[in-house]
Amino acid sequence: MKVGVVGVGCSKFGRRDDVTLQELAFEAVSEALSDANMTQDDIDISVVGCVGTRSYELMPAVPVNEYCGFAGKGPLRVEAACATGSAAVYTAYSSIVSGIADVAIAIGVEKMTEVETAVSLAIGGRAGNYLWEFHQYGTTFPAYYAMHATAHMAKYGTTEEQLALVAVKAHRNAAKNPKAHFQKEITVEDVLNSRMITYPLKLYDCCPISDGASAAILASEEKVKELGLDAVWIEGIGYSSDTSNMTRRENFVGLKATVDAAKMAYKMAKIDDPLNQFDLATVHDCFTIAEIMAYEDLGFCRKGEGGKFIESGESDLGGKLPVNTFGGLKAKGHPLAATGVAMVYEIVKQLREEAGSLQVDLKNYRALMHNVGGTGHFCWVFVFRR
Amino acid sequence: MKVGVVGVGCSKFGRRDDVTLQELAFEAVSEALSDANMTQDDIDISVVGCVGTRSYELMPAVPVNEYCGFAGKGPLRVEAACATGSAAVYTAYSSIVSGIADVAIAIGVEKMTEVETAVSLAIGGRAGNYLWEFHQYGTTFPAYYAMHATAHMAKYGTTEEQLALVAVKAHRNAAKNPKAHFQKEITVEDVLNSRMITYPLKLYDCCPISDGASAAILASEEKVKELGLDAVWIEGIGYSSDTSNMTRRENFVGLKATVDAAKMAYKMAKIDDPLNQFDLATVHDCFTIAEIMAYEDLGFCRKGEGGKFIESGESDLGGKLPVNTFGGLKAKGHPLAATGVAMVYEIVKQLREEAGSLQVDLKNYRALMHNVGGTGHFCWVFVFRR
Repeated sequence: MKVGVVGVGCSKFGRRDDVTLQELAFEAVSEALSDANMTQDDIDISVVGCVGTRSYELMPAVPVNEYCGFAGKGPLRVEAACATGSAAVYTAYSSIVSGIADVAIAIGVEKMTEVETAVSLAIGGRAGNYLWEFHQYGTTFPAYYAMHATAHMAKYGTTEEQLALVAVKAHRNAAKNPKAHFQKEITVEDVLNSRMITYPLKLYDCCPISDGASAAILASEEKVKELGLDAVWIEGIGYSSDTSNMTRRENFVGLKATVDAAKMAYKMAKIDDPLNQFDLATVHDCFTIAEIMAYEDLGFCRKGEGGKFIESGESDLGGKLPVNTFGGLKAKGHPLAATGVAMVYEIVKQLREEAGSLQVDLKNYRALMHNVGGTGHFCWVFVFRR
Repeated sequence: MKVGVVGVGCSKFGRRDDVTLQELAFEAVSEALSDANMTQDDIDISVVGCVGTRSYELMPAVPVNEYCGFAGKGPLRVEAACATGSAAVYTAYSSIVSGIADVAIAIGVEKMTEVETAVSLAIGGRAGNYLWEFHQYGTTFPAYYAMHATAHMAKYGTTEEQLALVAVKAHRNAAKNPKAHFQKEITVEDVLNSRMITYPLKLYDCCPISDGASAAILASEEKVKELGLDAVWIEGIGYSSDTSNMTRRENFVGLKATVDAAKMAYKMAKIDDPLNQFDLATVHDCFTIAEIMAYEDLGFCRKGEGGKFIESGESDLGGKLPVNTFGGLKAKGHPLAATGVAMVYEIVKQLREEAGSLQVDLKNYRALMHNVGGTGHFCWVFVFRR
């Protein structure tokens, strides 16, 4: 059975002291309902994605569904660390294919600024079985990705300037996205001169701590036809999860979970040449090195050539395969559970040619989505086509 | 597509200071794998159910999958308060029907004794949008169900002795279940004389705070045939969720979410006479009044006659429809996420005639499962048949 995305919504990302968790969710939900020309009555199941460790709501699905008008329709929450949004989209998808629902909404919402940033980062570093790293070395989240960066630099000669280019591109795109956390362009020098967090990652190599929400309404093919809706179809889904014990990983120059999840999604969607079969990609750029590894692990270039790929401009708007056209986690912001669903928002807007000054050229009408949780513990890859 | 349960496992429930969260999960997982004659390699997706608010693991799916051998296969956690186990079984089910997996494992695990009981109960009362009740009146979880009990007593003449009979039956069954938290029979007098918690609920009207885990392996019909497995099939699934704003509910003598979820599941499984079409039922007896309301809301008797139904002995072993044959939440224990999956364990053991001294008579080879989250915020109903 084919399942299509028929409505999307996204809140302003950033520091959102002005709203509660459920009010934030409603910003995205109400936009998605309008976009699909639907009301709450048309939705059969609501899947709420929320990591929740950084806000005060312990069981967030209850108030989110209550406030958004889905009491009676929201029987579960999902969580997969930073890939929670993808898990919500997957659960909405499988609810439709399994015949339980005709129309499903996936909501990703996160308030991350209700606890102090230092605490938040410490918690981030403790995504799962952290063994001794946190207690012994105080290893927080940036430190894990710094290990990836140093390994990549040592093995492939990737430079700090190449890492910086990822941030520069992200900020350039985000500057044109009114919903982005940051709307300010930066230069390579700004990145290189910014405060060192964990060598070689500096402040501008890291995504911010953001609040935000996004929502996507999915419908069965039958429902799409019945209502005459404009759908962006899900052609492929892949997932994986990797050991959280870093000492068991073969190397640090890529994420095995990304490679495995992409293989699964590409097989389902019959993709064998990703660089030429997609019009855009959203990849998980929590740190600049993460985007460079994603280029390689997703097959846009060979292993080790990610640094050259960003230099080539092929992932820029106007390049062969624009990546993170709305600013990425790096500059649009990364409210954990909202991120995966916001990637669907970006893809749907692009494939419908509604992206304004950030619009990519459409040839294949096909887009790739890549969302990672933890330090590569979770990974989801989706293929969309209009 | 038909989906069957082909392997089940359950840990000892109780205070489990001897194990970590992941070790506890593994007790159930290893039993389920042996039961299905499978290894981790046979599993395509692992769905971890864990509420997690009462233990120190913030993202429990990561260490649980790591320790249980599902790294690479466990891309998400689900949560639906006390109905989390059902949400895990549902997600495993829909993963198979949607073609993403042939074999899926649903794991429900909870460590509840890592925080103090008083804190735990306070958190319980705050499942969702608690409005002013908690701050104004200190309303914890038993107080919500006490409102149901007083409403039921006022409207239908239900007595404290009838409530006590639910606890007596639960303890009688649990006494024969070596995995139960409590293995001691009690009398109506014991219940009536136990410490008052919130009128009319006394200590023995309330389920305990337990640690525990359970696991169920589900497989597609094709896989069941291919491997020649003995399956208990899922014939019906229903869910609902209700407003968490108690002031918006029509009455307190039942749970609308149960009525709605049962309607959905009964329609799918073509059930019109539950009292005579099931050989046993597991219902959500977090407090004794909850089981009495469940009899009515699930259609075993008319509204208001639940008190008489427990008195009649029809829900005892040997009665027309034995309920909670392994001791229920009340005496077997209620490790939140483990509860729903442990209901599947009980049903599979019963329908396979492996329940020993707790075995029910089998005529229909059909069983009902009912699992509630929060104060009726979430509800899942399943129909199983061998």
